[in-house]
Amino acid sequence: MTPQENDENQQHLNILLFSADYDKCLAAFILANGAKDMGMQVTIFCAFWGLLILRDEKRISPENKDLYAKMFAAMTPSQVENLPLSKMNFAGAGKAMLLNMMDKEDAPHLTDFLNGARKKGVRFCACKLSMEIMGFTKEELIPEIEVAEVKVYLEDAARADINLFI
Amino acid sequence: MTPQENDENQQHLNILLFSADYDKCLAAFILANGAKDMGMQVTIFCAFWGLLILRDEKRISPENKDLYAKMFAAMTPSQVENLPLSKMNFAGAGKAMLLNMMDKEDAPHLTDFLNGARKKGVRFCACKLSMEIMGFTKEELIPEIEVAEVKVYLEDAARADINLFI
Amino acid sequence: MTPQENDENQQHLNILLFSADYDKCLAAFILANGAKDMGMQVTIFCAFWGLLILRDEKRISPENKDLYAKMFAAMTPSQVENLPLSKMNFAGAGKAMLLNMMDKEDAPHLTDFLNGARKKGVRFCACKLSMEIMGFTKEELIPEIEVAEVKVYLEDAARADINLFI
Repeated sequence: MTPQENDENQQHLNILLFSADYDKCLAAFILANGAKDMGMQVTIFCAFWGLLILRDEKRISPENKDLYAKMFAAMTPSQVENLPLSKMNFAGAGKAMLLNMMDKEDAPHLTDFLNGARKKGVRFCACKLSMEIMGFTKEELIPEIEVAEVKVYLEDAARADINLFI
Repeated sequence: MTPQENDENQQHLNILLFSADYDKCLAAFILANGAKDMGMQVTIFCAFWGLLILRDEKRISPENKDLYAKMFAAMTPSQVENLPLSKMNFAGAGKAMLLNMMDKEDAPHLTDFLNGARKKGVRFCACKLSMEIMGFTKEELIPEIEVAEVKVYLEDAARADINLFI
Repeated sequence: MTPQENDENQQHLNILLFSADYDKCLAAFILANGAKDMGMQVTIFCAFWGLLILRDEKRISPENKDLYAKMFAAMTPSQVENLPLSKMNFAGAGKAMLLNMMDKEDAPHLTDFLNGARKKGVRFCACKLSMEIMGFTKEELIPEIEVAEVKVYLEDAARADINLFI
């Protein structure tokens, strides 16, 4: 934690990232990067589908999973860029169109925003209960995540200036 | 209201529960129970689909409804455990898989969390306008709910430390 | 800005409107109108699909769009009342039923709440990045909107008493 992050007066954004839609994650990470650029503290607490964003594709290890966890891992996108849209996905056609429109505007993709957030020092937490239910191990997720109970979320959120459930 | 709940310094979580997806409701009730266990005040204000969580299945009375309200009641799950997932429901297969994974981890189901929240004294409000539109009567809902206008929500939320729209 | 809106002690609701579902927009605008009636400041920051609510149907100009932006404009509802439900839309049947139930209760439609919010002086912002990606021009949107960067949202939200992501 940097000295800046100990500052009681520093503003603080907390996002409970529940969804794994490409567009909703994009919104969450645009906010997280923007807040960091303004000098705010940012916590992203990933629960349920939000855990998919934390998977490190180089480290997914199906051999350690039981049947349901294996099926679940197989059914969910292992790459951030493969997440579907929340609306108008049209089996990928709407998503491809959105990506085309983003490229035309030279807008960064979700992976870029995720990498930016990691470099800027966003605090990433993974909901312990969700990990257990979904059969994710800490080893499959990006290394800097904290596996945290709901209490950690509530304490962080109670101190935050902006709380969003996305 | 207990003396503890009159405490100005007590932290306060307010959830506007709009969705009736099994997974989103699970998240809402895990947060509500966790916050209560930490000594926080908790208000869950149910609007639109969120009202489905407040239905008392023993008290649903179709005979008092008009045609649309009857159709609506018939089309929506009357039991909390029958709510679908927000994603990957696959006509119930994804949901069954999630429940299996929860059972494997001895994780409580939504009904357990809902009963826990009721026992711990979560304040439940039902949006008056949503009830009128959806044709729900107070008699069909769990007995402790307060039927409340949007003003009640806004007053409670303005005092809360954490506000979430789920 | 009225003198009242300069008041530091005035309560403040900020909604990040991301979704364009009829039911979710209805919730957002019922809250916005209710908050205005209670004397609160209200900001609605529209991003992604939320921009659809700001389109002025009399001013949509497809001739200035490139191919993707044209396709996108054609695929999305240009009239607020044509937005689908987030659930149980059933190709419009669920939506028609909801509107029937609303009419029976003399409940205003989304257009009425949107017009109410505009008259009551809700501050409307449109996310600049979303507009660029989706190919919307300021001329297509209602005249009073401010085109704003994510920084404007974060500053407004950090001052707000209630923050919701809808």
